Amino acid sequence: MRVINETTITDAALDQMSSTPDPRLKQIMESLVRHLHDFAREVDLTPEEWLAGIKFLTSVGQTCTEHRQEFILLSDTLGLSSLTNALHDKRATEASTKSSLLGPFYRHDAPMMKLGDSIISRSKGTEIVFYGKVTDAAGKGIPNALVQIWEPDETGNYDLQNHDPSIMDLRGCFHADAEGGYYFRGLCPLGYMIPMDGPVGDMIRAQKRHGYRPAHIHFVIGAPGYRELVTALYIEGDAHIDSDTVFGVVESLVTKVNKKDPDSPLPYLPSIRYDFQLARETDKASGRVGADPSQILKKTPVATKA
Amino acid sequence: MRVINETTITDAALDQMSSTPDPRLKQIMESLVRHLHDFAREVDLTPEEWLAGIKFLTSVGQTCTEHRQEFILLSDTLGLSSLTNALHDKRATEASTKSSLLGPFYRHDAPMMKLGDSIISRSKGTEIVFYGKVTDAAGKGIPNALVQIWEPDETGNYDLQNHDPSIMDLRGCFHADAEGGYYFRGLCPLGYMIPMDGPVGDMIRAQKRHGYRPAHIHFVIGAPGYRELVTALYIEGDAHIDSDTVFGVVESLVTKVNKKDPDSPLPYLPSIRYDFQLARETDKASGRVGADPSQILKKTPVATKA
Repeated sequence: MRVINETTITDAALDQMSSTPDPRLKQIMESLVRHLHDFAREVDLTPEEWLAGIKFLTSVGQTCTEHRQEFILLSDTLGLSSLTNALHDKRATEASTKSSLLGPFYRHDAPMMKLGDSIISRSKGTEIVFYGKVTDAAGKGIPNALVQIWEPDETGNYDLQNHDPSIMDLRGCFHADAEGGYYFRGLCPLGYMIPMDGPVGDMIRAQKRHGYRPAHIHFVIGAPGYRELVTALYIEGDAHIDSDTVFGVVESLVTKVNKKDPDSPLPYLPSIRYDFQLARETDKASGRVGADPSQILKKTPVATKA
Repeated sequence: MRVINETTITDAALDQMSSTPDPRLKQIMESLVRHLHDFAREVDLTPEEWLAGIKFLTSVGQTCTEHRQEFILLSDTLGLSSLTNALHDKRATEASTKSSLLGPFYRHDAPMMKLGDSIISRSKGTEIVFYGKVTDAAGKGIPNALVQIWEPDETGNYDLQNHDPSIMDLRGCFHADAEGGYYFRGLCPLGYMIPMDGPVGDMIRAQKRHGYRPAHIHFVIGAPGYRELVTALYIEGDAHIDSDTVFGVVESLVTKVNKKDPDSPLPYLPSIRYDFQLARETDKASGRVGADPSQILKKTPVATKA
């Protein structure tokens, strides 16, 4: 009979999974089981701790709703989301803007707007203009690129946190012009604390972390034939720029607010200027087409709770 | 500014968690983050795969109810529960019966019965007698030890899977006699397939695993001053004795059904005889008191869904 003990259990589990027909699923699950078991052995996990982990993960799952994704927040705060983005960027075969976190508050149904429109419907705060170009790796504008934007309000909350989901605020979709140019009005980004009323908040408190994200605004930018870019812009000088609770800040995404900007399409407002660069779609490095979180979110809701 | 990329992200995450006051939580989370990140790098995880993982874990959490624990089932099928048991056994400082899986169907409120009673209230099947002694490491009987038992019915389902939770079947609690002796009547154990109607079932199918557990009956045995024993007995000759989907079988827990047994307290029935050995409570090897899953389950419900 097979002997199952604290070392042989790993091979026993791998043997049982060896029948997996999909080679990629097989590879992922084998690696996952090896690392999960190594973790448990390394810390000499007790049944009490194991059960605390089961309860924590159950609570994370049960905190998810159609409009709240606590597992994404957990992944974000453990650095896994940021790592996944960095691996994605590394597989690009040409120059492109770095990715940043999708976060738990993306919505696929933000309203389509005209260049120059304001995404502010209810919030109060400093209005500024965001503008720049969407280009390819060579710096050539990508006509008609789709630019999706969302940001929190002046209290640090997204619309979904403040309101019934029927109300949208600080979200919008824009098509770039024939030269790839975009501009729109929004709030000057402010920092905020991640949602602390769920199990991830309990974890952050138990770790005595501050829980803050530096000021930022989210972008998802796409165009046919290009890898969709999920990213965010950050603001120079923010107190948490170097200690983001979810590790989203990359130096090349840090921008500054220009109080006077004669080049701005709306020079009477303060401005943030940023040019986004998209890489072509084929991901030769990995043999896979670049994945596309927002497209996936569109296809099936992340949270399945009735 | 701190550079965050696919290698530096791990130290960034560990630095942020370094403020954790509880040294054990700090140790566990550091090891977890290291292994989680190593896993993602090893498989070069894509955003699409990351999101599939988020959705899977969300669904596992949302499948849990007060009477169904899909995260325990996931842990069981990945071999993590069995590994945790093996580590627990290894920390015992004296001889004791090996642990086996608690599984997702334990209930803390099973009825108290008298020695010799039957735990069968509704099910039909072959009745047998289970008997033996609960002893210490030296083989001395432990008077009045508490023996909790649960098993599935002849269709392979536990009461909670068949009925409204107000109905109990095939569960019972017994106090051993003054010499540590116990005996009760129950069904001759049968094998069954784990619940396949949730996300863990989807995983098992995607891996082309058979999903069966060999015939078994669950025990939780405790007495003041001793480490509580969470275990199960298995039956020799079962077709899945060496390929249990949840890796619960340990050779020393495999028993046989005696058709004739003159030593049995009820010799007119087939019997399974087994003596359980409990180790003393202080866990010198780890410096922690032996953990106690059933006590923890009693204190707070595992599933928190309203």
